[in-house]
Amino acid sequence: MQAHTCPDIPTESTTPQTFSDAERAAVYRAIHERRDMRHFSGGSVSDETLLRLLRAAHHGPSVGFMQPWRFIRVKNKALREGIHTLVEQERKHTAEALGERKDDFMKLKVQGVLDAAEVLVVAMPPGREAHVFGRRTLPEMDIASTACAIQNLWLAARAENLGMGWVSLFDPAALAQLLQMPDGAHPLGVLCLGPVSEFYTRPMLEQEKWAARAPLQQMLMDDVWAQESSLDAGGSNASAR
Amino acid sequence: MQAHTCPDIPTESTTPQTFSDAERAAVYRAIHERRDMRHFSGGSVSDETLLRLLRAAHHGPSVGFMQPWRFIRVKNKALREGIHTLVEQERKHTAEALGERKDDFMKLKVQGVLDAAEVLVVAMPPGREAHVFGRRTLPEMDIASTACAIQNLWLAARAENLGMGWVSLFDPAALAQLLQMPDGAHPLGVLCLGPVSEFYTRPMLEQEKWAARAPLQQMLMDDVWAQESSLDAGGSNASAR
Repeated sequence: MQAHTCPDIPTESTTPQTFSDAERAAVYRAIHERRDMRHFSGGSVSDETLLRLLRAAHHGPSVGFMQPWRFIRVKNKALREGIHTLVEQERKHTAEALGERKDDFMKLKVQGVLDAAEVLVVAMPPGREAHVFGRRTLPEMDIASTACAIQNLWLAARAENLGMGWVSLFDPAALAQLLQMPDGAHPLGVLCLGPVSEFYTRPMLEQEKWAARAPLQQMLMDDVWAQESSLDAGGSNASAR
Repeated sequence: MQAHTCPDIPTESTTPQTFSDAERAAVYRAIHERRDMRHFSGGSVSDETLLRLLRAAHHGPSVGFMQPWRFIRVKNKALREGIHTLVEQERKHTAEALGERKDDFMKLKVQGVLDAAEVLVVAMPPGREAHVFGRRTLPEMDIASTACAIQNLWLAARAENLGMGWVSLFDPAALAQLLQMPDGAHPLGVLCLGPVSEFYTRPMLEQEKWAARAPLQQMLMDDVWAQESSLDAGGSNASAR
């Protein structure tokens, strides 16, 4: 084997630094065709692919470069069933809390823990309070960083033609106990990952009429909260992709 | 003009649903070459490009489809200077809190608020407590969702050959007051966006030796926290991209 100059730094950018139109379009395609999947078709994900996805997550941005994420790959069947049970329990608690939308909610499929090829639990490790850079006034930036890592994994999965769903219906203390996490660790998501027979053409919660996407225009303001944006997001579909 | 069938849904996926190898590579490239930029070269971002980026953000995943993000484009010079001042104030407070790393920290450039072509403040609107789906036990999922939207914008910006930096060094209450946010709104980031003369080849905090990237292997576990992963992430650089 030949010696490599930088064997541990595969992320050095190469020249040229610019993205082509085709590359740019591919990035937008992943962003717009990513879906929160709950329907999986079994199958498997190769170790090589899984490592590519995990490396994409690990190259997410993190406040002060703290890298506050850990990934537990749950292969054990009993543990998977334990997670499934925790999600079902929280699903019922959530349904009760939703009141008049209870029945609509109970019709939705909210997880694929038993069907997906892989289940990854994402958790933040103990000791996060030691990280002050960018978090003194916004301590939640560790959560934000971990979410960015998950979004990287999600987009990469879409580009690998794999579905992913982020399940947050669980009691974090119970999940931490099930997976023997140390005090101070905090699970943020159960990721279901694997082949799907097809991707939803629109977000499932939109297809099921649980909620509608707000017009982009309503999300935008100029300078201060009360001032409408001078950008014209309405009807400009040609520029949307 | 011809009538469109679904004028407001540019995100319907098209057939075929699979990504090509070239598309997949482009997505990984954006993930691995995205940088938290603090050096900008002025210039401008066209409204059309800005809208593409904001639409990418708005197509981030959100828990229960709650879409908990708002974007304030700060063009007013006095407001930009006000934000710059808030960041400088927090920079000093953070330096004090860091103790022995104070001097190293003060050498770092932490913002490009006055230099970037655009400044976007991302904030979450009031009323988030009404959203229970996926948040009854994990209320921080609104923060996670907003972070995913920002990550979409970040990757899209990289694909547009634009730099972006996420600044979280500010007192959120003071920033909310400066931009006249209503009670219950919560700013999560000041995004500096625009042309750069070059992208850092590695994360700036790594280049400046503030922190090193942890080996991926250390981030991975099997089934339970204490159990090392059977995946072999070490040295497998060929699969990293």
